[in-house]
Order: sequence, then structure tokens, then C-alpha cells
Amino acid sequence: MVVDTSRSPHARLRPLPLVGVRLSDGFWEPRRRINREETLPSQYRHLEETGRLDNFRKAAGKMEGRFEGIYFNDSDVYKWLEAAAWSLATDPDHDLEKMVDAAIAEIEDAQEPDGYLNTYFTFERANERWTDFDLHEMYCAGHLFQAAVAHFHATGSGRLLDVAVRFADHICDTFGPEEDGKRPAVDGHEEIEMALVELFRVTGNRRYLEQAGFFVDARGRGLLGRPYGRHDPSYSQDHEPLRDQDRVVGHAVRALYLYSGAADVYAETGEGDLLKALDRLWGNMTTRRMYVSGGLGSRHEGEAFGGDFELPNARAYTETCAAIASVMWNWRMLMLRGDARYADLIERTLYNAVLPGVSLDGGHYFYENPLEDDGTHRRQPWFGCACCPPNVARLLASIPGYFYSASDDALWVHLYAAGSAEAKMGAGRAVRLSQRTNYPWDGSVGLRVDGEGEFALMLRIPSWCEDGASVEVNGEPFAGQVSPGSYAEIGRVWRPGDTVRLRLPTPVRRVEAHPHVAENAGRVALMRGPILYCVEGADNPGLDPRDLVLPEDAPLSEEYRPGLLGGAVVLTGEAKISSPGEGWEGRLYRPATARPDGRPTGTAKLTAVPYHAWANREAGPMRVWLRAR
Amino acid sequence: MVVDTSRSPHARLRPLPLVGVRLSDGFWEPRRRINREETLPSQYRHLEETGRLDNFRKAAGKMEGRFEGIYFNDSDVYKWLEAAAWSLATDPDHDLEKMVDAAIAEIEDAQEPDGYLNTYFTFERANERWTDFDLHEMYCAGHLFQAAVAHFHATGSGRLLDVAVRFADHICDTFGPEEDGKRPAVDGHEEIEMALVELFRVTGNRRYLEQAGFFVDARGRGLLGRPYGRHDPSYSQDHEPLRDQDRVVGHAVRALYLYSGAADVYAETGEGDLLKALDRLWGNMTTRRMYVSGGLGSRHEGEAFGGDFELPNARAYTETCAAIASVMWNWRMLMLRGDARYADLIERTLYNAVLPGVSLDGGHYFYENPLEDDGTHRRQPWFGCACCPPNVARLLASIPGYFYSASDDALWVHLYAAGSAEAKMGAGRAVRLSQRTNYPWDGSVGLRVDGEGEFALMLRIPSWCEDGASVEVNGEPFAGQVSPGSYAEIGRVWRPGDTVRLRLPTPVRRVEAHPHVAENAGRVALMRGPILYCVEGADNPGLDPRDLVLPEDAPLSEEYRPGLLGGAVVLTGEAKISSPGEGWEGRLYRPATARPDGRPTGTAKLTAVPYHAWANREAGPMRVWLRAR
Repeated sequence: MVVDTSRSPHARLRPLPLVGVRLSDGFWEPRRRINREETLPSQYRHLEETGRLDNFRKAAGKMEGRFEGIYFNDSDVYKWLEAAAWSLATDPDHDLEKMVDAAIAEIEDAQEPDGYLNTYFTFERANERWTDFDLHEMYCAGHLFQAAVAHFHATGSGRLLDVAVRFADHICDTFGPEEDGKRPAVDGHEEIEMALVELFRVTGNRRYLEQAGFFVDARGRGLLGRPYGRHDPSYSQDHEPLRDQDRVVGHAVRALYLYSGAADVYAETGEGDLLKALDRLWGNMTTRRMYVSGGLGSRHEGEAFGGDFELPNARAYTETCAAIASVMWNWRMLMLRGDARYADLIERTLYNAVLPGVSLDGGHYFYENPLEDDGTHRRQPWFGCACCPPNVARLLASIPGYFYSASDDALWVHLYAAGSAEAKMGAGRAVRLSQRTNYPWDGSVGLRVDGEGEFALMLRIPSWCEDGASVEVNGEPFAGQVSPGSYAEIGRVWRPGDTVRLRLPTPVRRVEAHPHVAENAGRVALMRGPILYCVEGADNPGLDPRDLVLPEDAPLSEEYRPGLLGGAVVLTGEAKISSPGEGWEGRLYRPATARPDGRPTGTAKLTAVPYHAWANREAGPMRVWLRAR
Repeated sequence: MVVDTSRSPHARLRPLPLVGVRLSDGFWEPRRRINREETLPSQYRHLEETGRLDNFRKAAGKMEGRFEGIYFNDSDVYKWLEAAAWSLATDPDHDLEKMVDAAIAEIEDAQEPDGYLNTYFTFERANERWTDFDLHEMYCAGHLFQAAVAHFHATGSGRLLDVAVRFADHICDTFGPEEDGKRPAVDGHEEIEMALVELFRVTGNRRYLEQAGFFVDARGRGLLGRPYGRHDPSYSQDHEPLRDQDRVVGHAVRALYLYSGAADVYAETGEGDLLKALDRLWGNMTTRRMYVSGGLGSRHEGEAFGGDFELPNARAYTETCAAIASVMWNWRMLMLRGDARYADLIERTLYNAVLPGVSLDGGHYFYENPLEDDGTHRRQPWFGCACCPPNVARLLASIPGYFYSASDDALWVHLYAAGSAEAKMGAGRAVRLSQRTNYPWDGSVGLRVDGEGEFALMLRIPSWCEDGASVEVNGEPFAGQVSPGSYAEIGRVWRPGDTVRLRLPTPVRRVEAHPHVAENAGRVALMRGPILYCVEGADNPGLDPRDLVLPEDAPLSEEYRPGLLGGAVVLTGEAKISSPGEGWEGRLYRPATARPDGRPTGTAKLTAVPYHAWANREAGPMRVWLRAR
């Protein structure tokens, strides 16, 4: 997930090696522990029980039977492997290592002599290989490459990387410009682009970068024809060349993987037109087509972005994978520029759009993440199309990698949580940075720098912190700029034990949506720090969240409840109840008679909990956007 | 379309023969003329040019080549034939008759010796017949039967009816209860149920009624498996037996055709449980899942009904065929009971949900009918999946049949338009009823009864006419009950030349939606008489309808403009403009700072036109639900 931009000429930042970052906080680390102890082992069992690993055995001729499941099921094995590899990088685990090695052995055995590797097209459909580019062969290849890179970074072993390189060479030999005697093609589901760049970074072999560039360039030239399921070519972002695109359209995960790959290509080539296109797309997405959670994809139809301001709540699609893909794209943009807006969006998305995808017990998943529900939408232990579960796992496993970066003369802090990081600053000087904080429940962060020398400490001041952020250095007020949506640049000659105190006030915020978002007119969402809240039936028995009205001047109290939902700040207040009233029985429409805000029928205590933790208790209605009148 | 309930023991009303009903009004008759002169001939050309008729020639062995188009393309030919037949019933036309006879000849030649008839499964896939019940074999059969019944009623010719009977016998011989040695099955797309009942009514052969009953009963018992496109069984209403269902779910057209067929079965059998289920479904649909236009189907995904109150405007699916199917179902319910609520909904649906499906020039069609648009949704001359165009044509051709009915002692007027009807009342006495009116633009209707004897004239008082409806008989106030949503029952001994004057005030009405319809909070729709209005770019250049605010006390003027959109009453008034304002540039969310209704930024003249006529001029934004604050 985290990409290695340390030698990318057009990236300003480079990540810190995962192995040097430690989280010891009360928010992420318990979730990461569950990811290691529950999620990864249970997912491996699912891979076995659903025949996903058997497909490799069948491809290797070690087992009889037909291919089981969906044609892209190999990718779930690869994503799980990537997750497990990142987990091993920070938390060695003998049992997990055995599962990883066993899976890699199956993969090795299934690879064909010419490097091709896709179990759907091996033992049953060997002669259908590369005949239908909507059947995810390159997509699966990309996930293999990413798993291989992660495994190499985590373990130093080249076993899976060797498999990946053989397949990548096969693809590079096969596909490319016609004038080079190759076959021009693009895959129906983007993914391989970013994977090839990462393969270039780890092997140094430039052909993989060039191949990624070819796939980015070849899209939008009609090579794909009519995509999967008779969708419009925009479903696969194949309606026009990427450099001409200015609206995020089509299948959200496909789109975001493409943008990620294009950002990776830019980091190496520095081609201005590519970055301009990504800027336009990012602008359209964040100002027109994104949920307040950071979730993406408004339409069930085609799992797709909607039009501008098309953001239905109950029918939000907001696939968990799309949120993860957004983190991936924004991380790459952040590496390119060190601009805090990308880190802001990563934070918003992690807390509010990725995390709802997995239950607190680590064994149940949301594929879709509506912002409003009647209580029927519940997490499932697995899916036939199981893209989301291992995607969440690989993100949680690699999340320490998103907290910090380094640049030539600065150490960057993007996210806050108790823990520590080790970095090499200029001239190889080792610096250790540690955080003490109860973030996200408390906005006070104590940092300690252990190291010597001159460099800047870049502290992200979140854009949500619109007022009152402050910084102290060794107990003295910091004189430099501390503005929301940017990094406070604390440049000095550091000495061991220097301390920095960052204070981010976290009052409850009422957030409103652009007036053109139809459903949210007259409604507010509650946020506190980076956390989005919702009203859920479990805390508000007997209340219909549709009838709650939270007037703008109604005070809200905050309280940390350690036993609730793994520990969380809960908001409470008094709301009005405005039920439809008697005149509506048996009617859906009627003459407009009275202002609907005129007659609250009662009051009720309202309790709001973090949206990411909803649906972890008994089923009940849930709503993020509350009526303000 | 109109069904013959004249001998149905459990139907209260019977339709008047189409041939005796004349429309001579300024609203429907011009549209029917365009339907005859433009729509039907141009659709026949489409049937030829797209290979739909060629498929019959190929099936008959008269032509070489592969099947062209979608597997249910036969049904478009049948629906066109039904439309042409109804048109011939009221308006003989030599050219049209030649097209009809030519098409019937192709159909006759394509039928197999055993009665089977479906060109998709004849010359190319003869051995795949009846292997996949999601491939619409029975659906196409149903449309054939309906066309045959219409052709018989219209022309007296049994040619097409003979074809239908042979195929129906084949189906009755093949499918049925296992204990009868037959194959239990249901079709993925309901339609054949109502067609079989109509075939029973015209032939008197009870086996067709029993077969319809079998298909209704067999649904919801797992015979279908997983419907088309991996949808849930509810997509085809196959999730539980119809008698247990209480929510309208799944593909809207499938559902409404099923309910129509079940109502037809009830008309013959009188089984109470069936009617109870239909009542529950009707209640759920009309109070929870219907657009203000009468349009049905909230979801693009699966062309389906949404959940309760799920009624997005811009993403409304509201397939034209679903509106037509709703008219068909409500017509059958009306025949059963003579309850005005069904006629109310027929009227609402005809003016506001069926009519938008066809352009004023009769040559372009909407498949989907959103209630809000940015100007990109435009009618098309034809579709690959062309179910809607011939469906509109058959409804317009048969529409005189929906205006009147008869019962034992009464003549019923359901709809208003200038014209006349001939009916046989008790003891065979001929009665001629004529209407003079400018309905729907004017609510004053003059009726004249030419005939003698005692019977009741039942005049529908529309439910939209909430105040001030009045009736005079021969110039004297009518003393009986005149209440909205019921029929005024004018019982007397009629003498030739008796006159009745019905006055239905048509002030502009602001309508509000149930508060749980998320998008319509704080919004109103404008209606006048049965007509729903919209604000369209063509009349409001430079205005963004999203920013229009129509305060509840803003007066609206009405004016009939003969040259506009075929002649229409237009509404004008002064609205406020409340644009998002400067604080929203580059933002989609922000801290809630001010009440959004606090600061109108200007005023503008607003012009609203009938929704059914939108998108007949230059492209531009359109909106039905206007902000009231």
C-alpha cells in the first residue's frame, strides 16, 4: 500500500520504512491487533474453504476439479498475502508466516512455464487466456505484484517477487504498441499500472515503468470496446484519454486505482499534463462527488461515481474498496507535493469511510457503506465477490506507513496517534520521534524528538481545526505559522529530548453540505476532530432518526465512554421530535398546508456515536445527516 | 389494453367497446392522430430496419442469417400489432391495415407445427427452447396473445387469434402441476398471466384461465431459481407466494404485470386472498413507493421499486412501461370495484407518467422519466431494448377505452375530454353520452345524455379537486353527494337531451411530499387539475432551478398559450433566487454557519410548464420539486 518514492525524481516526500514505525495507541493498535489475530487467520480460512487456494492447486495439477468462484478470485489470495506481509513487517508471527509460505508455494507451483499466472485461465480455460480484457487478468496480476513487493519489503525474501517478475515480463513481452510488434490492450479493471511502477521501484527494471505508462496512455483509445456488463466505456474510464478527463466517472474503484497508477507514473516521469489531469479529477471528486465520510461512489448501478452533487444517503454505495483506493491515491499525491489537503482527506477517509468496512470483532465486513439505514444493512463474514475484506486487512496492516514521511530537510507528521517512528535525516543521522496523545478523542499531542541536527518538523494542522490550533516547542509558544489545512514548519537545530506540544481544539462541529446536495438541505452532520458521528437505534431506542430535529443552538455534551464500542467519545443533547403527524396516514402527497418546521411534537435525548462503529450492536435505524429544522 | 370484463362474475364494471367511444378534444385526439400518422408507421419502419420482422422471416426459413437483437425482440412486434389493432378499431386506415396483415403473415409462417412460436429459439436455438425461463419465452407469448385479442376485437379476424390459441395450447400442454404430468415453471418476466385470462375471455376456453391461475400460484415457490443477471428472487417477485406479499418489490414492470394478471384471475374466480394481497400491495405502492407523477420504479439497479420513501428525483427510473403497467393494473382494479381511487391514479399516471414517454412529434421516446435533470436526458428515436415505444403506442391507441364503463344500472365516466360514447344500458337500450370541455386546462365539463330510461350517471369527482366541485342537472343544482375521490351518482329517468354540468375548480395547488421522502423536504410540486408542472430551462433562461425558491405566499398566474407545446396552461410567478453563494467555491462541506433560507440573493420570474411536455424544446435543466424555503 505504502509506496517507495525514495528514489522518485518528482516526489517531494518519501515514506519511512514500515518496520521503524510503531503505534502504541488506544485507537489503531487494538484494531491492528484484531487484524493480526482475528482477521488475517479467519480470512485465510475463507480462502481455503471457498476454494480460492484450491484453484491454485488445481492449476498446478495437484488437485482435480473445476475452477471455483469468480474469475478474479486469485486477487483475494494476493491481497491477503499483501496484508499478511505488511503485518509480518511490524509484528513477526510464526503461524502467519507459515500460512504465507504455504500460499506462496501454491502460487509458485501454479505459474506456467512462460510466466503466465491466472488459475481461471489455466487448467480449464487455458486457450481463452487474454481473449476478454474484462476478465481481470491484468488486475489479478497487479495484485500479485503488489503482494510480491510487500513480501519482499517485509521479509527480504525474493520468492514471490520472482513469480511476479516472470509474469510481469510475460505481460511486457505481450502487450504494448503495435509498432513494437506487440498487442495493444488495456484491462477492464485498472490496478496493474501502480503495481508495475512499484515493481520498477523494487527491481530497478525500467521496462515495468514503461509498461505502466503504456497502459495509462492506451486507455480511452477504444481498445477495450464495450466494458463488462454492457456498461458505457466510462465505466472503465475508457471513454477518453486520461489526460483529457476532468470528471470522476464510472466504477469508482477502477477509477481510483487508475489515478493512483497515473500518480505513480508521474512521480517517475514528471509529465505535467498527467498531473494537471489528476488535479482536475481530484477537484471534481472532492468538491462535487464525495460523501462527508470521504466515501466515494454514489450509485449501486455500476458501483459508480454519480453526477455532481448526487449523494444519496441510504442508497450510498461507497464501497469500502473505493475508500481504500482513495487513501492510496491521496497518499501518492501527498508524496508528490507534501500538500496537507491530501493528508486531510486520508485522515477523513480512514476514520469514516475505511473503518466502517470492518466490524469491531474483525470478522465481519461491509461492502457498501450507506450514511443512513433502516437497520437491515449488516456486516457479513465474507462475500462471493470478496474484494473488500482483504483490502481492509492490507490497509490496517500497513497503516503505520501512512503516519510519517521524510523529505530532504524535514520530517513530516501526517497523522496522530501514540507511538514512535525512526527516520534517517540528512547525512544519515538517526532521529526518533515519539507521540503521546489520546487522539482522535483528544486533540492534544505531545511530541518528543530524539536526535540531533538541523531539520524541520512538519506538523499537519488539520483543516477541520478551523480555530485555535497552537504549538509549543520546549514549553515556549511557536512563533511560526499554524494554519488549518497546512503543515506547521518547525525548523531548528534539534537536541535529544526536545519536546513539541500540539493543541488541536475538538469542539463538536455541525457541518452542512453544499445546497445542491438534494437530500441534505436543512440537515447537518456532526463531527468532532476527524470523527464523523451518527445517530443509531442502539443508543436511541424508540426514536425514528428521520424525525429528530437538532436545532442549531441545541447544546451537545461530549463524554468518553471507555466501555462503549472499544472506547469512544459520545455526544448527547436534547433534540426535538417532528413526526409526520396524523395528516399523513395513507398519504404520500398532500396539499402543502403548513411549514413542516412549525410543529415539533416533542423532545428527546439524542445520543450520537462515531459512524465508523455503527452496526456493531443490535440492528436499528442509523442516520448521519440530521434535520436542523 | 382494455380488458373485457363483461362476463366476469367478480367485476362490477365492464368497459364500453372501443369502437363506440370517440374523442374529439384538443388534448388527447391530436396526440392520437400523431400516434396513428407518425408513431405507428415510424415504429413499423424500426421493426423492419432493426431486423425484428426479419427474425420471423428467418424463423420461417424465408431468409438467411442469424437472429438479430435481443432475445425478447418478438414482443416489440406483438406490441406494435396490438397498438395498430386498437388504432384500426377506432380509425380505419388502409395503409396501416396492410402493415398489420403483412406482419401477421410473417408471424403465421414462423410458427412451428407444434404451436411454439419464438424466433430466438427457432432457427438458431431450437434445442434451447424452454431451457432458461429468464429468456422471456412466455413473456413474448403473452404479448402475442394480447395482440391477437386486440386484433380480433378490432377487425373480427381470427387469423392472429388462431396463432395465439395454437401457442397457448402448446403452453397449456407443457406447463402445469407435476401431478398432471406437466412441467412446473414460471417465467422470469410476468405478462402471460393477464394475456391468458384475456384469451379465455375471447375464446371461452377455461383452460387458459386455469393456466393463468397456475402461473400466479406457482410464483414464489422457488421454480425460477436465481433470476436474470444474478438478481435476488424478489427481482421477479419470486421471493414468496403472491398471496403473502405486502410490499411492491423488484423489477417494476414485472411486478405490475403480475398484479394485473392476478386481478384478471380474481375477476373470474373471486378468491378473497388474492384480492387482499393486491390491496396490500396497492397500499404500499401508493403510500410509500410512488412518484407524484404516478411514475413507479426508484432504482436504475434492476429497474426496480425502491424502499419506502426512496424517491430520488434526478435518478428516478420511472420507466415509461411501468407507468403503462400501472394504468393496466389500476384499470383492472377499477373494473373490479368501481372505486374512484383507481381512476384517480389512472388519470394522474396518464397525464404525468405515461405521456412524458413520447415526444410531441410522436417520434422520440423516454425509457426513464426523471423528475429533475440537468438537460442531458433527451428522448431517443428507438432503443435496443425497445419495450417502451410500442407500449406507449398501444396505450394511446386504446385510450378511449379508459374513459367510460357500464355496470348493471349505471354509466360511469372516469376521465374527461370532449367526445362521445355509446353504451347499451339495461334491456339493451342504447344511450349516447357526449362531453364538451376543455379539460384538462379547464375543469368545466358539459355532458349530454341521449337515451331514455332509468340508470345512474356516475361522474368521477377527482381527488385533486379538494374544494368546490359542483354538479347541475338540466340547469338545477344536483342535490346528491359530490365529494372528491368518489363518483357522484346521478340516478334518474333520463330523457333525450338531458344535460349535466360538472364544475371542477382548478386552482394551482402546491403539493408537499411525506416528510420521510428525503429529497423533497422543504419543497413543493405545482399541480393544476390533474397536471403536474415543472420548471424548464427553455422558459427560464439563465436560471438554475436548484436555486429557485417559491415562497408559500408567492402568487402564481395561469395563462393558456395555444402555441406552446401543443397548447397548454402555463404558470408564472415571482420566485426568489437563493444561490449557494461565495462561501461554497471549492467546497462540498463546511461548518454550518447560517440558515440557508436566510439570504435570498435576488428574484426572478418563474415559468412552469406541464411536466409531460418537458424536453420537447432546447435542452436545459428541469425540476419538478421546487424549494419553498
